[in-house]
Amino acid sequence: MSARIRVGIVGGTGYTGVELLRLLAQHPEVELACITSRAEAGTRVDQVFPSLRGAVDLSFLDPASAPLGGCDVVFFATPHGVAMRQAPALLEAGVKVIDLAADFRIQDPAVFQAWYGMEHSAPGLLREAVYGLPELDREAVRAARLIGLPGCYPTSIQLGLAPLLEHARTAPGAIDPSSIIADCKSGVSGAGRKAELDLLSAEVSENFRAYGLRGHRHLPETVQQLERLLGGPVGLTFVPHLVPMIRGIFSTLYVRTPGLEAGAAQALFERRYAGEPFVDVMPPGSAPDTRSVRGTNRVRIALAHPAPGLLVVLVTEDNLVKGAAGQAVQCMNLVTGRPETLGLGHLSAVP
Amino acid sequence: MSARIRVGIVGGTGYTGVELLRLLAQHPEVELACITSRAEAGTRVDQVFPSLRGAVDLSFLDPASAPLGGCDVVFFATPHGVAMRQAPALLEAGVKVIDLAADFRIQDPAVFQAWYGMEHSAPGLLREAVYGLPELDREAVRAARLIGLPGCYPTSIQLGLAPLLEHARTAPGAIDPSSIIADCKSGVSGAGRKAELDLLSAEVSENFRAYGLRGHRHLPETVQQLERLLGGPVGLTFVPHLVPMIRGIFSTLYVRTPGLEAGAAQALFERRYAGEPFVDVMPPGSAPDTRSVRGTNRVRIALAHPAPGLLVVLVTEDNLVKGAAGQAVQCMNLVTGRPETLGLGHLSAVP
Amino acid sequence: MSARIRVGIVGGTGYTGVELLRLLAQHPEVELACITSRAEAGTRVDQVFPSLRGAVDLSFLDPASAPLGGCDVVFFATPHGVAMRQAPALLEAGVKVIDLAADFRIQDPAVFQAWYGMEHSAPGLLREAVYGLPELDREAVRAARLIGLPGCYPTSIQLGLAPLLEHARTAPGAIDPSSIIADCKSGVSGAGRKAELDLLSAEVSENFRAYGLRGHRHLPETVQQLERLLGGPVGLTFVPHLVPMIRGIFSTLYVRTPGLEAGAAQALFERRYAGEPFVDVMPPGSAPDTRSVRGTNRVRIALAHPAPGLLVVLVTEDNLVKGAAGQAVQCMNLVTGRPETLGLGHLSAVP
Amino acid sequence: MSARIRVGIVGGTGYTGVELLRLLAQHPEVELACITSRAEAGTRVDQVFPSLRGAVDLSFLDPASAPLGGCDVVFFATPHGVAMRQAPALLEAGVKVIDLAADFRIQDPAVFQAWYGMEHSAPGLLREAVYGLPELDREAVRAARLIGLPGCYPTSIQLGLAPLLEHARTAPGAIDPSSIIADCKSGVSGAGRKAELDLLSAEVSENFRAYGLRGHRHLPETVQQLERLLGGPVGLTFVPHLVPMIRGIFSTLYVRTPGLEAGAAQALFERRYAGEPFVDVMPPGSAPDTRSVRGTNRVRIALAHPAPGLLVVLVTEDNLVKGAAGQAVQCMNLVTGRPETLGLGHLSAVP
Repeated sequence: MSARIRVGIVGGTGYTGVELLRLLAQHPEVELACITSRAEAGTRVDQVFPSLRGAVDLSFLDPASAPLGGCDVVFFATPHGVAMRQAPALLEAGVKVIDLAADFRIQDPAVFQAWYGMEHSAPGLLREAVYGLPELDREAVRAARLIGLPGCYPTSIQLGLAPLLEHARTAPGAIDPSSIIADCKSGVSGAGRKAELDLLSAEVSENFRAYGLRGHRHLPETVQQLERLLGGPVGLTFVPHLVPMIRGIFSTLYVRTPGLEAGAAQALFERRYAGEPFVDVMPPGSAPDTRSVRGTNRVRIALAHPAPGLLVVLVTEDNLVKGAAGQAVQCMNLVTGRPETLGLGHLSAVP
Repeated sequence: MSARIRVGIVGGTGYTGVELLRLLAQHPEVELACITSRAEAGTRVDQVFPSLRGAVDLSFLDPASAPLGGCDVVFFATPHGVAMRQAPALLEAGVKVIDLAADFRIQDPAVFQAWYGMEHSAPGLLREAVYGLPELDREAVRAARLIGLPGCYPTSIQLGLAPLLEHARTAPGAIDPSSIIADCKSGVSGAGRKAELDLLSAEVSENFRAYGLRGHRHLPETVQQLERLLGGPVGLTFVPHLVPMIRGIFSTLYVRTPGLEAGAAQALFERRYAGEPFVDVMPPGSAPDTRSVRGTNRVRIALAHPAPGLLVVLVTEDNLVKGAAGQAVQCMNLVTGRPETLGLGHLSAVP
Repeated sequence: MSARIRVGIVGGTGYTGVELLRLLAQHPEVELACITSRAEAGTRVDQVFPSLRGAVDLSFLDPASAPLGGCDVVFFATPHGVAMRQAPALLEAGVKVIDLAADFRIQDPAVFQAWYGMEHSAPGLLREAVYGLPELDREAVRAARLIGLPGCYPTSIQLGLAPLLEHARTAPGAIDPSSIIADCKSGVSGAGRKAELDLLSAEVSENFRAYGLRGHRHLPETVQQLERLLGGPVGLTFVPHLVPMIRGIFSTLYVRTPGLEAGAAQALFERRYAGEPFVDVMPPGSAPDTRSVRGTNRVRIALAHPAPGLLVVLVTEDNLVKGAAGQAVQCMNLVTGRPETLGLGHLSAVP
Repeated sequence: MSARIRVGIVGGTGYTGVELLRLLAQHPEVELACITSRAEAGTRVDQVFPSLRGAVDLSFLDPASAPLGGCDVVFFATPHGVAMRQAPALLEAGVKVIDLAADFRIQDPAVFQAWYGMEHSAPGLLREAVYGLPELDREAVRAARLIGLPGCYPTSIQLGLAPLLEHARTAPGAIDPSSIIADCKSGVSGAGRKAELDLLSAEVSENFRAYGLRGHRHLPETVQQLERLLGGPVGLTFVPHLVPMIRGIFSTLYVRTPGLEAGAAQALFERRYAGEPFVDVMPPGSAPDTRSVRGTNRVRIALAHPAPGLLVVLVTEDNLVKGAAGQAVQCMNLVTGRPETLGLGHLSAVP
């Protein structure tokens, strides 16, 4: 390993790309080696993103000519289907690969194909790929060569349910895993930097709506992981909504807890996340808000008990940081043997 | 009844007040007789609300001197606790009273006191007061002298559940009324025109949060009405959230439907609301949004079936119109023998 | 003329199109005959715009097959360059044509070509076309067969300067017409319903910027009209800015007034616009805001005198109403002999 | 000087207070010693501002009991009039004082009294106080005991005009200093964390307006400084506007440049700010936006020449950072002998 981490980014013109650039440009041990974009090849990065003027002195390279093989870590901030084709050669060259798209999230290639409408080109790698949610399996991440980074919604749902599901492994009946509801709300940056009518400012502002009612791609990935945590089947209803704001996910999780005493959940969550640098279990009676984690890699969780036998878990994260680029850097720190929190100490600018 | 409806408004400087003014000023058969405000007495209405320049030629009067007794209808757009003290005298004078606050929503004075922190000063009127949701009991509204107008959230929840609860009266087992979840989202105007830190633009914009987690005042009113619709106990979990937008309520209702065949719900809703001018049941697969009802008295409802045995009802309304001032005008039309839709034909300005 | 105005719309899927539909659907004497869209031919209008459910019972027609020739009035809510090709045949058929694009705004075809990058296909009609700003030349509009509707910015700038320029015709030296500055701010709907990255919600929200710094297309049109009002050359600096909101234009106009006594301007404006139903000159000391005219055909103007010899004119309008669709309906009323304000009485929904 | 800078904050519950806390909590050489608030004495800081959970482990102290005298630097993030009463004792105790309010911005106590409506209690200190805009007089700041920090608007206007005014000292006639226009736009956080109706989300969102038309308090301070830069009288028209966003100032400055050759201004600005770490002169043709500096201490400037003899200077800053707390930290770094940029390297989180 070199003194500094040599990093490459494939496909850096989207919102997860520019967020990666922001975090990596301020990371004390990263050397940004190259960044690719077919459409913007030859253009200076800070011309596309003036917020990086003075901080990133690179131009986008054509993917074909970029020296990705010489990197320690390569991030894919690309549409689904790109990483699975390019990862094998990079892994061969000894590069650690972190994919921010969905190529390596779902272990069953048939499920991947059903939800993403394309055949998986590297099914053999699916077995090796590690699901990059360090709070749930830090050692696997640390040892990984290839990481499939979780989606933004799945990160919030898993962190909001993990203490309960892990507890239910040894305390069956504590919760009813067959009827979990995840009513999730996301800012519009989660949809990416795509020129689509539905994402126009005049369409999104002063409006609130549900979407993905026929099935959202984050569902199979989430269920797969929840079932791993529980060691059994999980019934999850997931309804995403679009909030007229740029960043932030707020997941309101409804869990029936027939066998969990009142007050036990708070202790369960506090114990589970004690020592976790990026998960903040708030005191009883708190109400988290998305802005308190905006721009940060932090997740804030609070619990409410509106009715006997029902637990409401409120989870907030920044979809572009802990839901994408920040979690990617957290994984990079782990796979390169750095302190997990390096370069991730940002506080939210409030208001 | 006079040729035109003589209308008075008590407390017109809040958001429901100015919305009443907008609707009444454009109503073809209303004569706006007087409007009161202790704080703004003597000030022209259009100085406080320049949007009414050229449309409302009145000044705020001191409540003590306003000729409310000569009105056909008086609206109370006041804080809770005002209408219950002034209504008796007005009713005595033959005035119809429509309260947009909570004074006449809850039939049990003990429940009112528990949730609103004040003794009810006119418990005798609670028996007479009619809950002003015409779609659920039009004839009672038509015959009423005193109307307690529903809260904004309760309107959306009741209209979203009524077809199911009414059906369950004769088809027990069709739904599980003990485990209904109402995950509701509201724009900030629902909190009123109050100088509070939490409502500042810099606090609300680019932020999303839950609130009222220890119990929201709209809960007892909603449960009372749902139980009337069902004729039995209802278990409702109600979690309100604040959306960074001005107007609009979006209620996502989760109902377990063990005894309802797939597809039956859509027909149930369409049949129940056929002929209702202000309730639009959208075709299967639709996703309503709040802007399509903004500024209108319309409610839009769509159904989704994300999992077997679970029905998701999506309800949108404008909290200041169908959730307050528009419903008030709808009730006024009924109690004065006008066509129910008179002056309520506004279309939403999209985008 | 038929009892009702038979109206056709060419190109109704943009924001001026849907706003036309909102206004026309509520207009008491309009029969919406047909609406065309190549891309959406065959689709119900209320499927594209659910806000029109229950109000517009039409489907988009292919332009080739739409019975536009049988209409009394046809609106073009199309990209620049469409109306000039289709107007001649419609005029021949006796249809009044109102173009909301720029085809008939600029009288000199060379200027049109320089700014819009296309040759004008009907230069002969330019002489006949009337610039559709009724407050400045009502009789010409009333008599017109073909109307080129002003741009949104130009409407606000002209109405804000007309009293001064008209005064200066007979009082040379009252103002300095060579150094007028128009610092204009617009909501994002002014850019239209186009799938462009720059217009995405995540790009526009929580951001403010200038644009069009190398020259905005509304400049030549505005200067042409200002010079007509003055009867001499006008020097105008026009800097448009993008405001993170949907609707509204706010023009801050700086005019040097060496020969205008303090206080004279207010009287000038009040006299000029006395009796104008859609122009509201506010009292001295007022500050207009865009929301007070949102959704309405109203323009509000206030004057300020921050320094001797300098007049600041503050003008607000809704860019989609008085800046486009509302002004189009106002012109339609005039060319069909209706009262100018018919169907245009909407009040702004505040907040 | 101690190894770390011991810092105290007086009045930390406003927006400049929480922004100071964000920056200081992440500053590598600061020890946050104490923070005061009369209203919140005894409350944990992170209870008022949950975004600081895990980063600030302090409670608000009553001003009377706070050990401010033992600090190296004390910031006043208080209403106007507080610092001038408390500064003398702190200076006596050897503490450096940086006031973010207006107490020490204006050198003439009569002017202060005229605009702020209170007598200045420490007129003797006005002569000593240094105006804390390092880019304009770095050595004075470095040597200061007492700093009056510029207002947010004045910072942007001065940095946008300094190269021109300094040039005009030796090239009279290059610009016309008697007719400068500053059309400024600010996000709502500039108005502070005050429970006022005008600042409510429902009032500010989807709205744009001018304000301060009878004279804004930032005017005398700005003129004082511009005249110092020029060495002669300056005529400035300043019209502030409120933008529906949280953070950001955008100043559009119009300067007549009779004696400045086309193209000379760009070179002038680039030369003047070469080496300035926080001022970025963008290439010709650029259009800065507020988000590219959001959360940062950076100012971005671009020039446009819409008409001969007229220069438009576009300046963007974050009103809470370079316009307040960031500039305060920059000054703190200077007065404590630290590198000026220490702890101020934040990049904007875009989008």
